[in-house]
Amino acid sequence: PHVPYSATRYPEETMVERSKEFYSLLNQRRTVRRISPEPVPREVIDTVIRTAGTAPSGAHTEPWTFVVVSDPEIKHQIRQIVEEEEEVNYRQRMGDKWVKDLAKFRTNWIKDYLDVAPYLILIFKQTYGILANNKKKTHYYNEISVSIACGILLAALQNVGLVTVTSTPLNCGPQLRLLLKRPTNEKLLMLLPVGYPAADATVPQLKRKPLEDIVVHI
Amino acid sequence: PHVPYSATRYPEETMVERSKEFYSLLNQRRTVRRISPEPVPREVIDTVIRTAGTAPSGAHTEPWTFVVVSDPEIKHQIRQIVEEEEEVNYRQRMGDKWVKDLAKFRTNWIKDYLDVAPYLILIFKQTYGILANNKKKTHYYNEISVSIACGILLAALQNVGLVTVTSTPLNCGPQLRLLLKRPTNEKLLMLLPVGYPAADATVPQLKRKPLEDIVVHI
Ligand SMILES: Cc1cc2nc3c(=O)[nH]c(=O)nc-3n(C[C@H](O)[C@H](O)[C@H](O)COP(=O)(O)O)c2cc1C
Ligand SMILES: Cc1cc2nc3c(=O)[nH]c(=O)nc-3n(C[C@H](O)[C@H](O)[C@H](O)COP(=O)(O)O)c2cc1C
Repeated sequence: PHVPYSATRYPEETMVERSKEFYSLLNQRRTVRRISPEPVPREVIDTVIRTAGTAPSGAHTEPWTFVVVSDPEIKHQIRQIVEEEEEVNYRQRMGDKWVKDLAKFRTNWIKDYLDVAPYLILIFKQTYGILANNKKKTHYYNEISVSIACGILLAALQNVGLVTVTSTPLNCGPQLRLLLKRPTNEKLLMLLPVGYPAADATVPQLKRKPLEDIVVHI
Repeated sequence: PHVPYSATRYPEETMVERSKEFYSLLNQRRTVRRISPEPVPREVIDTVIRTAGTAPSGAHTEPWTFVVVSDPEIKHQIRQIVEEEEEVNYRQRMGDKWVKDLAKFRTNWIKDYLDVAPYLILIFKQTYGILANNKKKTHYYNEISVSIACGILLAALQNVGLVTVTSTPLNCGPQLRLLLKRPTNEKLLMLLPVGYPAADATVPQLKRKPLEDIVVHI
């Protein structure tokens, strides 16, 4: 069944104002690789994930699972898996070019934040679903849908003053899936350490492209 | 060079409150397939796109181009391309299963909104970049990065009371790229008609998964 839809209608000046405020909030978002160990209310984590779950998805399949890890032992095991693979990535798989492209971010395969951040959110895409009759259900565009949900999650984190490192751990998916006991239809898409920024956090001084470099009006 | 980073720090109750307000705003988002022809301030469109442009991206490549079409003639040509391909999709390529999966959304290959919406935003992913020396620059994870930016764009639209239809027009990319004169390194990822909802808009009555079906705490 279909139901009527109505949206809040703002006067034009209010729209302009709201759009600018939201831009200003999100423009302050940065990838912060030094995260504070201070605890963060779990209710806030649950609510930002609930917010991510409002994302659109191909044919409303909602093909996402958010695994929130706060257990120090499991965080440490995740760190070991990620660092081991990342060291191989940096030393062998990526080649000099990638390593050079990344040099300005001062990233390397040492990821303290995987131990330190109060929460690690591992986002799995469900590459297919399983119907009551045990048949597979196609999940159209599952990676795009889950990435959109991740964009909404990042906005929700920024809105409450939390930071993260958007990351797609290369080659760690299968080991992390086993560690976290996720089923075979789920594949790791993103790993987000979440917390307050460390008091002495720094970020690379980056510029964002100006509007005229990303938009074309026709 | 690195610079200090500090974020707004809210008291815990404020974080809880802000997270709930943002959830409530975004939980009202729906894909609305009947869009009003009323004009929308262009400044708002520019600001929501600027907001999308704050998204993180693999190695800060910012691999996105937002083509905003308001010219009625070009909108109509886009509609013709999309409807022609969609009719083939529905009749031949997708098979009965997909058509059945989509039936509850009452979508078909007729897309009035492509003529009617005041703006069509076509989001291209730049599959590689071009350096000053004409060499190709790798764009790591460009599709994921652009999809994250799209999630932020959807949040920004919802924040100002505008609606859209998140869509990934199957097989139309090459023709739309030529129509819009985009270079060969750009591939169409998403097409978003944007406007106010039509006064008589309806949406399918869908439920979203409850939190416990999408989150696992460890
Ligand atoms: C990647 C992606 C592709 C989609 N493609 C279409 C589409 O081609 N046509 C359409 O009408 N809706 C499309 N949708 C919208 C979904 O059908 C919609 O998000 C879903 O039914 C949930 O409804 P809601 O967005 O109102 O929450 C798409 C959504 C996503 C995320
Ligand atoms: C898909 C994707 C993968 C990323 N992978 C990593 C990563 O593995 N390690 C890391 O430190 N940063 C990673 N980043 C963060 C980017 O380096 C960062 O977003 C970019 O440099 C822009 O900086 P900003 O987020 O502070 O605006 C990734 C970002 C995206 C979108």
